[in-house]
Amino acid sequence: MRNLDHDSITPAVLARLADTPDPRAREIVGSLVRHLHDFAREVKLTEAEWLRGIQYLTATGQKCDDTRQEFILLSDVLGLSMLTVCMNNQKPPGCTESTVFGPFHVDGAPHFEDGADLANGAKGEPCEVSCTIRGLGGEVVAGATVDVWQADAEGHYDVQYAGLDHPQARGVLRSDAQGRFRFRSVLGEAYPIPDDGPVGELLRATGRHSWRPAHLHFMIQAPGYETLVTHVFRKGDQYLDSDAVFGVRESLIGEWVRQPDGVWRLDFDFVLHRAQAA
Amino acid sequence: MRNLDHDSITPAVLARLADTPDPRAREIVGSLVRHLHDFAREVKLTEAEWLRGIQYLTATGQKCDDTRQEFILLSDVLGLSMLTVCMNNQKPPGCTESTVFGPFHVDGAPHFEDGADLANGAKGEPCEVSCTIRGLGGEVVAGATVDVWQADAEGHYDVQYAGLDHPQARGVLRSDAQGRFRFRSVLGEAYPIPDDGPVGELLRATGRHSWRPAHLHFMIQAPGYETLVTHVFRKGDQYLDSDAVFGVRESLIGEWVRQPDGVWRLDFDFVLHRAQAA
Repeated sequence: MRNLDHDSITPAVLARLADTPDPRAREIVGSLVRHLHDFAREVKLTEAEWLRGIQYLTATGQKCDDTRQEFILLSDVLGLSMLTVCMNNQKPPGCTESTVFGPFHVDGAPHFEDGADLANGAKGEPCEVSCTIRGLGGEVVAGATVDVWQADAEGHYDVQYAGLDHPQARGVLRSDAQGRFRFRSVLGEAYPIPDDGPVGELLRATGRHSWRPAHLHFMIQAPGYETLVTHVFRKGDQYLDSDAVFGVRESLIGEWVRQPDGVWRLDFDFVLHRAQAA
Repeated sequence: MRNLDHDSITPAVLARLADTPDPRAREIVGSLVRHLHDFAREVKLTEAEWLRGIQYLTATGQKCDDTRQEFILLSDVLGLSMLTVCMNNQKPPGCTESTVFGPFHVDGAPHFEDGADLANGAKGEPCEVSCTIRGLGGEVVAGATVDVWQADAEGHYDVQYAGLDHPQARGVLRSDAQGRFRFRSVLGEAYPIPDDGPVGELLRATGRHSWRPAHLHFMIQAPGYETLVTHVFRKGDQYLDSDAVFGVRESLIGEWVRQPDGVWRLDFDFVLHRAQAA
């Protein structure tokens, strides 16, 4: 274990993992070491670039707080989040597809009665959303817990407004005996992901825009079914083909239609996948 | 750019990097994306493991402050630091080898006259160190700037003592007209790297110890020569074959010899590599 060179160091580090008690931890850390070393060798990483990487990761960690998760954003823009979603949510055709969770969900959002207005003062044109939840066999899914969250007309989530002391445009609903749930809110708009930190710096350095197409987040949980984390994207949005976080699915594009009274309306149905035996 | 799956997402992310103005940035970020995705696919990373990774990196960044660099420690224990050192410091036989910089160097340490005592109150048995700096052709290197830093008898660097208001066991010297420099200090001991943070958690989870063999850090800078960042390790240390950061070189092991008066003495000579044309 002396005189390691830039090739022999990799098996030496792997050998040092041999006593890892949990085989899954050994597998993950070992694979990480091999790929990290391969990356450094492939680009012939200089010491100055290594230090820049250390500083970048440090700044990313230090940008995180109760309402900002810069490492999730970094994972999102590098495609790692969506890759992980794809691998872990392979479902039969007909099931609603999953997409990224994103950094803006809040645990413990307020519960609302069916049909309620979740906007709670959020800026934007009024809209109403009507959905049904079914299983793949066509059975209705009653009593599902539905988390909804979204950006407002300015493309901001409530947690991005410093000093705002109550939730806006987010809430928890429950599907009724027919598997339906409805709510009112505001029309969300496309928005740039937060770009005043290390992730924004990376996007600028790589000549990329930071925009996500307009979308509405859903997390649907029901006993006996896999939890569904997804969005409904807005038909016609200019960023559907260049989502900064690679999350768009054709099947998740919904049409918000403007009614004669000026209220936008979305109808969208979800199909859950039965939970599989472990 | 819709309906990406866990394979097609990788070329999609790489395509998004096509407008990166700096070709080196494009190369590095592109390689990072490929290896990161390959890692996730290889281990079939679950969503829970992904989130654990996000939390781990966040905690690592948040552990960093003015005197603690947890991402350097992480890079060190994963072998990435030493790999980078190896790739960037390939020198002809006869030159003093490089090793890791580590997280404990401090810019602007106090300057000392030749022969001075750098201990400045650090705990430990007294020692004196005598060195000569030459070039590969045998020429003496006069006027070199020599940074020295080390742990004390308890295995701690000065910056690890909360409330200590002055440097201990570190300083800057200059080689004389014969390429020599000498100083007194204390005998450093083997020590565990700081293990009260995420890196300690990783070492415990992988069944690894956190110890480094006793060593003395040097950074030697002289006009016309490559800067040398290295250690001298103490002969006989029990951790020479299992350094937590993989930094030991046989050629860097020095012998501290106890003199009749109880003072330890190390003689060690350095050979610098001429700076190469850019």
